[in-house]
Amino acid sequence: MPERARFTSSAQALEHWQGHRRLTRRVIEAFPDEHLFSFSLGGMRPFGEMAAELVRMAAPLVEGAATGEWQGYESEVPTTKAGLLARWDDDTQRIDERWRTIPEGRFAEEDAAFGVYRDRVQGLLQYAIDNEIHHRGQAYVYLRALGIEPPPFYER
Amino acid sequence: MPERARFTSSAQALEHWQGHRRLTRRVIEAFPDEHLFSFSLGGMRPFGEMAAELVRMAAPLVEGAATGEWQGYESEVPTTKAGLLARWDDDTQRIDERWRTIPEGRFAEEDAAFGVYRDRVQGLLQYAIDNEIHHRGQAYVYLRALGIEPPPFYER
Repeated sequence: MPERARFTSSAQALEHWQGHRRLTRRVIEAFPDEHLFSFSLGGMRPFGEMAAELVRMAAPLVEGAATGEWQGYESEVPTTKAGLLARWDDDTQRIDERWRTIPEGRFAEEDAAFGVYRDRVQGLLQYAIDNEIHHRGQAYVYLRALGIEPPPFYER
Repeated sequence: MPERARFTSSAQALEHWQGHRRLTRRVIEAFPDEHLFSFSLGGMRPFGEMAAELVRMAAPLVEGAATGEWQGYESEVPTTKAGLLARWDDDTQRIDERWRTIPEGRFAEEDAAFGVYRDRVQGLLQYAIDNEIHHRGQAYVYLRALGIEPPPFYER
């Protein structure tokens, strides 16, 4: 098999990520207001802080992938559940719009995300998706420990 | 941008997964023997049982992707840390060898994994990778709760 055979197209990768984003949104929603930014286990961050990290990374990364210009991490992320969900929805639309403008061939280019993290653009975007799955998995443990049934992992 | 532009090649997807598998192996290794198959939080499964699920899915899925024949989940998975790690290493090699025989164009075909889960072959493989990241994220919480520093997420 040619090593360069296509595994995923750009459109499929976007839809795959947006499916994960829909699930992560449901996980944020599942947290009671009073626990999202305070409950934690093992000395880890509350899930609200992890979700804020995802917000700081996601849309700015797609902007940088599309334009080659890096605005830096966005630091202002809402610290209420309602605010975080509203921001999530805005970013979902922004990601959809900007991803579609990423020039063909750009995924294979090397770049330094936010001027710091050097990888192929595909690898940078893949990292953001993987990091979201990773932290959301941790949120599942938080929810279970709170006695709350998380949304099914396979539903996107 | 053409929607069909390539995001990931077959060789990149394999290397991406094997990088995650190396990290998951380090996470299994980080558990003390006496906790791998017993410690849990929130009424969830111990990580050893989750890892056994990953083993039952991974190599057989690549076999099915390569051949179109489904042997069914493998049910016999070692229940000791040393046994699990040895099996992990065998499967890593099996995945490497079999992935490279997956025919070009096969990723886009629909199939029913294990006769049950219907998706494009790419989606079936992607699910196994995502599911590994998801459960390994949960293992990070277990390790932290046990007072053990997990291996860095970004090291593959």
